[in-house]
Amino acid sequence: MLKLSNLQKKDLNYVWHPCSQMKDYEEFPPIVITEGKGVYLYDENNKEYMDVVSSWWVNLFGHANERISKSLTEQAFQLEHTIFANFTHKPAIYLAEKLVKLTPDGLAKVFFADNGSSAIEIALKMSFQYHLQKGKANKTRFLALTDAYHGETLGALSVGGVELYNQIYHPLLLDTIRAQGPDCFRCPFNNTPNSCDTPCISYVEEQLELYHEEISAIIVEPLIQAAAGMKMYPPRYLKKLKDLCLQYDIHLIADEIAVGFGRTGTLFACEQAGISPDFMCLSKGLTGGYLPLSVVLTTDDIYDAFYDDYNSMKAFLHSHSYTGNPLACRVALEVLNIFEDNNYLEIIKEKSAYMKKVASETFTYQPYVGEYRQTGMVGAIELVKNKETKEPFPSEERIGYKIYQLALEKGLLLRPLGHVLYFMPPYIITKEEIDRMISITNEVIQEYFTNTKEV
Amino acid sequence: MLKLSNLQKKDLNYVWHPCSQMKDYEEFPPIVITEGKGVYLYDENNKEYMDVVSSWWVNLFGHANERISKSLTEQAFQLEHTIFANFTHKPAIYLAEKLVKLTPDGLAKVFFADNGSSAIEIALKMSFQYHLQKGKANKTRFLALTDAYHGETLGALSVGGVELYNQIYHPLLLDTIRAQGPDCFRCPFNNTPNSCDTPCISYVEEQLELYHEEISAIIVEPLIQAAAGMKMYPPRYLKKLKDLCLQYDIHLIADEIAVGFGRTGTLFACEQAGISPDFMCLSKGLTGGYLPLSVVLTTDDIYDAFYDDYNSMKAFLHSHSYTGNPLACRVALEVLNIFEDNNYLEIIKEKSAYMKKVASETFTYQPYVGEYRQTGMVGAIELVKNKETKEPFPSEERIGYKIYQLALEKGLLLRPLGHVLYFMPPYIITKEEIDRMISITNEVIQEYFTNTKEV
Repeated sequence: MLKLSNLQKKDLNYVWHPCSQMKDYEEFPPIVITEGKGVYLYDENNKEYMDVVSSWWVNLFGHANERISKSLTEQAFQLEHTIFANFTHKPAIYLAEKLVKLTPDGLAKVFFADNGSSAIEIALKMSFQYHLQKGKANKTRFLALTDAYHGETLGALSVGGVELYNQIYHPLLLDTIRAQGPDCFRCPFNNTPNSCDTPCISYVEEQLELYHEEISAIIVEPLIQAAAGMKMYPPRYLKKLKDLCLQYDIHLIADEIAVGFGRTGTLFACEQAGISPDFMCLSKGLTGGYLPLSVVLTTDDIYDAFYDDYNSMKAFLHSHSYTGNPLACRVALEVLNIFEDNNYLEIIKEKSAYMKKVASETFTYQPYVGEYRQTGMVGAIELVKNKETKEPFPSEERIGYKIYQLALEKGLLLRPLGHVLYFMPPYIITKEEIDRMISITNEVIQEYFTNTKEV
Repeated sequence: MLKLSNLQKKDLNYVWHPCSQMKDYEEFPPIVITEGKGVYLYDENNKEYMDVVSSWWVNLFGHANERISKSLTEQAFQLEHTIFANFTHKPAIYLAEKLVKLTPDGLAKVFFADNGSSAIEIALKMSFQYHLQKGKANKTRFLALTDAYHGETLGALSVGGVELYNQIYHPLLLDTIRAQGPDCFRCPFNNTPNSCDTPCISYVEEQLELYHEEISAIIVEPLIQAAAGMKMYPPRYLKKLKDLCLQYDIHLIADEIAVGFGRTGTLFACEQAGISPDFMCLSKGLTGGYLPLSVVLTTDDIYDAFYDDYNSMKAFLHSHSYTGNPLACRVALEVLNIFEDNNYLEIIKEKSAYMKKVASETFTYQPYVGEYRQTGMVGAIELVKNKETKEPFPSEERIGYKIYQLALEKGLLLRPLGHVLYFMPPYIITKEEIDRMISITNEVIQEYFTNTKEV
């Protein structure tokens, strides 16, 4: 019988946690965080956890960041919120201006929402309505990749391809056209990502040949399919997707919710492919890990298709109560200021190179490590049962979950995806902290496999 | 040619506003708010607007509220956010505890999300998955009322019944079973809400007789169908809905996003019907108008249907990055403290009685006012072309929109719904401000009809 604190008891009495089998909490009760500072979270017993997953990929500049908290405070005492239809305010205006300037050319207008899922739904609805208003009422479907993840509301879930999240809801989901996505670790063409000419684009081509007239948009996570286990693929693939979209009059929706704001080494992942999508969805790092906020950037061409006399009924009548929330916009603006003032893209370049060097040396030749891969500041360790054949561990063994618990004991917050351990630390992490993150991870992997008889 | 400020120009260059035909902004450019205080918003020219729609029904205790801003600040410097799977924190725990205690008996567990639409999607998904896991895989559909509004993401939009928002997206929506809802102003049974025995429940009964085996849940906005034009109906109807749900093993989802937190005169609208729903969705006022946050409260029976060994795959694997955000939870907690400390339910009782008296006297006998109706602190003026026949004005005339502009000139932020003007002011509004709100509204109605030749 575990001894629980009063707060833990209360939590288990009243809270239903996200993405959790609550029965797991019987043996592994919720950790009560009372404070955050920099890369660290502190629990009610003052135990320290190094948060190298940036609390679900949102934190960029550390917990309880002084500069961000100050700007939030200032905004709170000035204007916490205003209706955003017919009304506006400086934080939203300046943020929209900055985002248009920083994102790829062609993205010209900013539509605000509250979370990633909502941003995806907006892009899907806008794309569909655009085609309808351009006389293509048959474009009612979307193409997405296997292993894609785009969120949890029913529209976003429909374009997701991670069966763990969407299979059970099949009767409620849109009939999405699914193309096999790139799988560089287990490449069906036996290529390596550095040398290949992405023949796997043919899977998309096949679907487009069959269904292009019905397809409104292709949605993709540029460079990294994150929730699928940080599956990485080269920019060339993205460039080909964009070309196919142009060829068939189909929109490209770039879901940069997880990969935006420097994670892949460039401010936005699309830059590495030299492309500009028709829609770019941003959230997570947008507020540096502070507040829910999302945006959809789109083109003038799309904006113009909705611009008409009111009674034409062509407007995009989507809204959320807190759309354009000044507090969240102000925080997002400060995050972009910090990025610029400190030249964080250079810092990311240097730290990611260091992380790649140390992690590659540490993990690549380990048994049970199929691959260590990294794009920008996202590193992933793919655990395999058989290094030769790349045979995976059965998911029922919950290897990732068990290693996660071992790591937490040692003060490292990893939270793997299945059998993939990954690092997506805040950019303020130091080289010493990178060393410690890697060495604890290495320790717990070895500890797990040493203690597990099945292997 | 309108003279625009630099901020207005920038806004129009970069921002795509919600729920707006952007072409309207050519003649009616966005108002740049720079400050908020109490019931008032101030624009860049220091013009004052009395915000009697609580900025889309979210604000409870005034803009830039000192007490709320202080608690937000304190939280920001302590813990701005943490991952919420396996982790927790005091603001979420205390908020969940408080909500469970304040909501109707039977609601026992709190699931967090970021906005109203996401809360609705969670309730729909949970209801469906519950029945599936209880062996009722055929329960894949939802029943909703005509004129319902539940949000903008595709699942939430599917159960909505306001055609303005969902008709165009028909190919992307779920096949919802629609029952004609109560329409007390134009009652098909020629009843009045005070005396009737809600024979209109028969519309729901008819659909249930036909489809009950396929129906997972009925979703409803308790007491007020807000977006439809503040359509109000008596608690008896709600009680009957609950009874029907019990009879047919169907969940009741109470969407109290707009009506919760005192708006209808009780803390939650369901209380007036003496019912406890299977799901209660809350947002908007939850954070007093500060930050996007939503919760779904549900029962132990539903929670238990998901509680099993991990490999049974019965967990509810829904999450948003900022689920359980400490900043938003802390603000929500402070909002509930303010409610209690100041006994706001008493204040609402007094102010709503005053508002009802003055508004009824002012509007009821006006030509073109079909009805002044009020529930709690929500008052609505239904404009009609013909008071005898209740013939509405054609929507193309955009009467509400034009009156809205006249009111803004006089410093009153009304933002009607079609031809329904409504008041949903923050609870801190004074009696003098209520007087002014009503008298300006009366002025602009008269001004509009005096100046309009068509009428």
